[in-house]
Amino acid sequence: MLELDTLSEIINESLRDIDYPAYPAGLYQPIAYILDCGGKRLRPVLTLAACQAVGGESGNAINQAMAMEMFHNFTLLHDDVMDKADLRRGRPTVHRKWDEATAILSGDALLTLATQRVTMNAGEHLHDVMELFNKTAMEVYEGQQYDMDFEQEDDVSIEQYVEMIRLKTSVLLGAACEMGAIMGGADKKVRDAMYTFGEKLGLAFQLQDDYLDTYGDALIFGKEIGGDIINNKRTWLLVTALHKDTTGKLRRFIDHCPVSNAEKIATVMEIYADNDIPGLCTEAIKNYVNEAIDAVKTAGLSPSDEKFFIDLALSTIGRTH
Amino acid sequence: MLELDTLSEIINESLRDIDYPAYPAGLYQPIAYILDCGGKRLRPVLTLAACQAVGGESGNAINQAMAMEMFHNFTLLHDDVMDKADLRRGRPTVHRKWDEATAILSGDALLTLATQRVTMNAGEHLHDVMELFNKTAMEVYEGQQYDMDFEQEDDVSIEQYVEMIRLKTSVLLGAACEMGAIMGGADKKVRDAMYTFGEKLGLAFQLQDDYLDTYGDALIFGKEIGGDIINNKRTWLLVTALHKDTTGKLRRFIDHCPVSNAEKIATVMEIYADNDIPGLCTEAIKNYVNEAIDAVKTAGLSPSDEKFFIDLALSTIGRTH
Repeated sequence: MLELDTLSEIINESLRDIDYPAYPAGLYQPIAYILDCGGKRLRPVLTLAACQAVGGESGNAINQAMAMEMFHNFTLLHDDVMDKADLRRGRPTVHRKWDEATAILSGDALLTLATQRVTMNAGEHLHDVMELFNKTAMEVYEGQQYDMDFEQEDDVSIEQYVEMIRLKTSVLLGAACEMGAIMGGADKKVRDAMYTFGEKLGLAFQLQDDYLDTYGDALIFGKEIGGDIINNKRTWLLVTALHKDTTGKLRRFIDHCPVSNAEKIATVMEIYADNDIPGLCTEAIKNYVNEAIDAVKTAGLSPSDEKFFIDLALSTIGRTH
Repeated sequence: MLELDTLSEIINESLRDIDYPAYPAGLYQPIAYILDCGGKRLRPVLTLAACQAVGGESGNAINQAMAMEMFHNFTLLHDDVMDKADLRRGRPTVHRKWDEATAILSGDALLTLATQRVTMNAGEHLHDVMELFNKTAMEVYEGQQYDMDFEQEDDVSIEQYVEMIRLKTSVLLGAACEMGAIMGGADKKVRDAMYTFGEKLGLAFQLQDDYLDTYGDALIFGKEIGGDIINNKRTWLLVTALHKDTTGKLRRFIDHCPVSNAEKIATVMEIYADNDIPGLCTEAIKNYVNEAIDAVKTAGLSPSDEKFFIDLALSTIGRTH
């Protein structure tokens, strides 16, 4: 298995090498802009690694790997418009740097470019990769819809919240793993094992994201701490705390919050601490990491390949950004 | 060949029969809403007709036909957000009836549902139909981008305008025809002939649309007459008139128009008449209709099938809505 950093670099290079048409610039420049952010490229790395681990050449899955990253960035692009977000990875979002119409249209184009990548050199696997890609895309939209719905709903259960993040973020990691397994020629059992690994890893990852927004180090995390609390964002922390806090104090406080942002963050964190929310969250993350590890152990990989995925899952727990 | 109305009814029934998931309602209801508008369903009808005409069973292309209609409606849905349009086919647009985020997300989902349909029962043609679909989608986005770009540009040539509408609207009609031909098992030459028929028909159709916005009957056309003039919309009429009117009167008038909407329409129509714009437009439409007819005549269809497509092209000229 190639090193994680080497796989990331292969992806970054492949994305940089995409030859966009020069015109219309308003369509292609935002796509190049959002894809040009470096980073770990977790999803496509999973695709390449899974392909190699099941016995394929990782190069055979390069287009499908790129498709995963392109699809992910398409969802970020459109989500940012829907959420009216100003910044993404420390840079202006596409709809701020250009405008909303540009963000919608270049997002559409990025989705189609991702679909095109899925089909490239797919050979005998074309039907399977397209089926997986389309199914996953629909689930991601469902997750985003539930996310928006939940912002308007008072009583979201922890199960509903977890199902929402599973759809919105985890299925894409599951699909990234299975996509690589398909391109590597794996059978159904191995495909399913790799999918479950990615799915559980995604859940661990998203809960860690929720956790770090409140308990992370602002400098390392790369964004302001406490943003979720200020915005009353439904996170695992808030949803769980609302169910744990039988006094109703948290509910009343976030419904009618007359204090400053700093005071709001402090008070909510106090209620979280009183109800052991950070401990429960860390526990839940560990459970998902263990489920991911259990799944990959059923895939029949070589010990060194298995270790690659296990280390990746364990690194989630130590993650600070 | 089945009658035009029969083919439309098959499409309308197939679209009505789509079984959407009940949840999340915010994602699927807008899709059902925009697809539930009845109408001629020109694009999918072309797909079914082309499939049958080249010797296939029209039923074999039903999913690809639905995909064409779904893709078309996805573009309308997102274009309406970009254009901030209030009405579509006499009903509130999705982003007015729901909200902008809903329109963006359900549009994304509709694009993926269309892609899913393209793959359904495509069998040995899967690679070809996916390639055509993705290529066409990219061209449609390019056309929409040029359309938005041209709103900000003073000097759009007639050639640029025609290329824009070719991309934005005609290639989809071309693709609808070729998609049917592929599913019917046609060879490259026949596929190309059917594509060209649809493409030229699309150009005739769009120019007729431009023409009717100014010279149509409001009741039959289904929307207010003169809307394009009021909004300074770059149409074939305006672009051609700006190039014909060497006095610069039209340019000055639309740049600084201090009069009422009714006066604006009357004055612009006067300048159009002085420069023979309606006559030139009618002429251009006829030319595209003839090019469409010439193309379909090279496809080697049976006389009755050929007549079906020729009649369809000729009906564009007599179109009042």
